[in-house]
Amino acid sequence: MAVASRPRIALDAFGGDDCPDPEIEAAVASARSGIQILLVGDQEILRSKLAKFGDASTLAIEIVHAPDKIVMSDSPGKAIRAKPAASMPTAFDLVKQGKADAVVSAGNSGAMLACGLFKFGRTKGVDRPAIVTTFPTVRGRCCLLDMGANIECRPLHFAQFAVMGALFARSYLPSFGDAAAGITVPRVGVLSNGTEESKGTDLTRSAHSIFKEHRSDDFHYLGYVEGKDIFRGKVDVVVTDGFTGNIALKVAEGTVYAFTDLLRQSVHAGSVLSKLGALLLKPTFRALKLRVDPDVQGGAPLLGVRGTAVICHGAASAIALANGVKMAANLVALDYGPHLADALLRHEALFAGARSTGGAVEVA
Amino acid sequence: MAVASRPRIALDAFGGDDCPDPEIEAAVASARSGIQILLVGDQEILRSKLAKFGDASTLAIEIVHAPDKIVMSDSPGKAIRAKPAASMPTAFDLVKQGKADAVVSAGNSGAMLACGLFKFGRTKGVDRPAIVTTFPTVRGRCCLLDMGANIECRPLHFAQFAVMGALFARSYLPSFGDAAAGITVPRVGVLSNGTEESKGTDLTRSAHSIFKEHRSDDFHYLGYVEGKDIFRGKVDVVVTDGFTGNIALKVAEGTVYAFTDLLRQSVHAGSVLSKLGALLLKPTFRALKLRVDPDVQGGAPLLGVRGTAVICHGAASAIALANGVKMAANLVALDYGPHLADALLRHEALFAGARSTGGAVEVA
Repeated sequence: MAVASRPRIALDAFGGDDCPDPEIEAAVASARSGIQILLVGDQEILRSKLAKFGDASTLAIEIVHAPDKIVMSDSPGKAIRAKPAASMPTAFDLVKQGKADAVVSAGNSGAMLACGLFKFGRTKGVDRPAIVTTFPTVRGRCCLLDMGANIECRPLHFAQFAVMGALFARSYLPSFGDAAAGITVPRVGVLSNGTEESKGTDLTRSAHSIFKEHRSDDFHYLGYVEGKDIFRGKVDVVVTDGFTGNIALKVAEGTVYAFTDLLRQSVHAGSVLSKLGALLLKPTFRALKLRVDPDVQGGAPLLGVRGTAVICHGAASAIALANGVKMAANLVALDYGPHLADALLRHEALFAGARSTGGAVEVA
Repeated sequence: MAVASRPRIALDAFGGDDCPDPEIEAAVASARSGIQILLVGDQEILRSKLAKFGDASTLAIEIVHAPDKIVMSDSPGKAIRAKPAASMPTAFDLVKQGKADAVVSAGNSGAMLACGLFKFGRTKGVDRPAIVTTFPTVRGRCCLLDMGANIECRPLHFAQFAVMGALFARSYLPSFGDAAAGITVPRVGVLSNGTEESKGTDLTRSAHSIFKEHRSDDFHYLGYVEGKDIFRGKVDVVVTDGFTGNIALKVAEGTVYAFTDLLRQSVHAGSVLSKLGALLLKPTFRALKLRVDPDVQGGAPLLGVRGTAVICHGAASAIALANGVKMAANLVALDYGPHLADALLRHEALFAGARSTGGAVEVA
């Protein structure tokens, strides 16, 4: 896919829980920063809401009409057939037609996966596309996949997740700053309930035995990682199934919120001195929030489809959505797709081994 | 099992990663607080180390000789047959012989489960004993099971976990203080990757459909809970398989450590004022640490065996081990076993339904 000089992002205006206000605000912020936005959704609503921004008429925002919308309770597969004129599939169509370079949406992630499969198609060599997310560690940044697209997995999928994740870590993590800039051979681990080989499920043990026999210049397999290791920067890529990955990430998110909440309760119940301390630490907390907040990272790309799609949190704020748009623009600039296809080709032996382990391969 | 007026706890002195020093320190602290300790392990080592404590000769600590020890790399099932004179199985034997009321160990949790099964035997009505852990939420405390004993589960096991967890929440959580004192009908949830019924795995969906048809005075089933909900106090009991439970808890643990580490880094790199702020907040952080630290809670009981056993973290400190001993003494005082047997009997209909869903029942 040719890369436009100025990235053109199709932003689903009716994806998130509070749509379309955060989406419109994100569109304006992105356009002001030089990204071309195709804002997809009900044009009347979008036009009247956009008018409230003073410079709307001069901004690079084009409204693309899509009267329908896919909601969280929709069944993913059915929704994109039943609602072809919904904002999400329309945004994917824009990329397919060459009118946009990438899609960003805070909508139903199952429907995003379905759109990725049916509109873009899978990358050659990928059986299951995966959603990859990145998060801060004490040493830098790490990425984890799958975070929810594939609930039940087989060793073959883990092998493909490792290859996709390693390339993503090497090419994308450096954009988060110096800490991750040095990744040349990403370290990969399989998430398990202990580091000993005897731990894990049938799935993790099969994947582990395949990985440990495989030599690759693209990644270095370190073995099992535990839940407590993933924020320690022990590996650059954590491979897991979508059920476990989703729970791990949401637990981490919930823990940060609970911890800050409990801290707030303690400060509130504490002495005047502790209140003063909290006040003095405010800038530090704010800086830390910038580092750990999912808002900063913006979104999670869908890897393994022939096009760029970034999935944002359903409750994504305008800032998160704008960062998701920026991430999509960066991915387009990296021209990630052809590199991924090459990397997958280099690991055909790994996949062949995994295929013979995990049974027949489902084709979507 | 009759309850001694002063609880007698068999403490495995050669369980934890740094044994036997933390164990000995915990034994002394527990004995000083009025608990009778049977300290199990190599008597020569224990005798010479105990002698360093001034009041050792007057304390209620009895050394029980066990020359061997089970290590983390031992295969659980084999270890207890191959090493019958190891400290862990010897501690279980003391309870079996009526010389102690409960076992506490920071050793191999798989071996603890095996000892529970082979030395104590399962409680009638339980197919798979489970390890239950408790943790703080923004509203009080919550318990989660299984946290690692059962890697692959069936709906029947989830049904039994719910009954065991609900009774534990009602009878034990109040001992943590006011916040949890009001639990009369514990709220139970199944951990999943979303709250919608369509989410989850085959296992969670089967369990969900069985729970939602079941009416019980012992617990109230609320449906799926997400990773981010478990620290919000949405439910009192989280039911999950041992693989997912272990990862969820270790992620939470890792997140707290990473967050405080990042905060420390930020303070270090920050202004003089932020350093002053951190200093003033120190007492608050210390109080919060007491609330969230796994050390305070001490251990995780093994539920569903005919005897009391508390499993501590391999890296448990002396404080954690002493709290584990206290937890074991509290559980003995509650005389939990007969209540559990009754509760299980009351839910035979739930189990019968679950049995017909999940295939044949394995017998250990």
